[in-house]
Amino acid sequence: MSEQSETSLANQTAQEITNPGEAGDQAVGGRHSVPVQGAPGPMPNFAKGGGVVPTIVQDYQTGEVLMLAYMNEESYKRTLATGRATYFSRSRNRVWMKGEESGHIQIVREILVDCDEDTLLLKVDQIGGAACHVGYRSCFFRRVTRDGFETVGEKVFDPEKVYGRKNP
Amino acid sequence: MSEQSETSLANQTAQEITNPGEAGDQAVGGRHSVPVQGAPGPMPNFAKGGGVVPTIVQDYQTGEVLMLAYMNEESYKRTLATGRATYFSRSRNRVWMKGEESGHIQIVREILVDCDEDTLLLKVDQIGGAACHVGYRSCFFRRVTRDGFETVGEKVFDPEKVYGRKNP
Repeated sequence: MSEQSETSLANQTAQEITNPGEAGDQAVGGRHSVPVQGAPGPMPNFAKGGGVVPTIVQDYQTGEVLMLAYMNEESYKRTLATGRATYFSRSRNRVWMKGEESGHIQIVREILVDCDEDTLLLKVDQIGGAACHVGYRSCFFRRVTRDGFETVGEKVFDPEKVYGRKNP
Repeated sequence: MSEQSETSLANQTAQEITNPGEAGDQAVGGRHSVPVQGAPGPMPNFAKGGGVVPTIVQDYQTGEVLMLAYMNEESYKRTLATGRATYFSRSRNRVWMKGEESGHIQIVREILVDCDEDTLLLKVDQIGGAACHVGYRSCFFRRVTRDGFETVGEKVFDPEKVYGRKNP
């Protein structure tokens, strides 16, 4: 994604979000709320984790845990404003929108905060069917066994084709 | 839980674990594996997170995300050896078994590792029906809305009765 298109993220997504409050309405007995639009209210505790909070990402429909990422305050605000999951890369030291390179963006349907307010849970629609950069639906595609890590996940795409380079 | 009972954890749990490989067998087409017993194979990357890995805990049957905790190498090995989720408390700087005070232990049914090997996903049977120390089934009992954090989770127990003191 070019810098130009990234600056217009809020405008792009405002039209594309498909009623993110829908499931929430059911969860709280009919009260209307749109969790992923508008200005943020109280903030998670970013200070506790040195400026970031771990963010669990779960498929909104199947409940499958897709990945763990981190958000700083800027990426949190951008996620709320755009409805697209936006994280902070600790290794690259920058805010990034999930899917900006692969196209596999995440439409945020619900955001939950934990009891300590230092961890977030995002429920998303995973565009492209895969969250993991090595081509699996979930980053948790290997199971721990006494003999080692055993692949149990489903490979959805070829990372070389999507990213144009070899991934681990 | 007393120190005496904690030292005999492995013996206690070896008999109590109810076939943890059952679902795994289905997932990999019949191959027998018992992920949560015996000596560990390759290890997650504890060094990357300063000696700990974030560990997502998910209800094995419903898929509900219950909490996020941290494991160091000792708690990881103890979890594998006992089949009971055991974490490392960063604030108290010690290994603790989930439920050692409340009785709400977590029987580990499956452990998954992510692509970077720096995050774990535990699928557990949550004894007592609640993982959160403030009495909710999941620690993620509040939803982020534009007006603030809104409680949507189900309160399962009174923390004062379970822990004998007032919790936040």
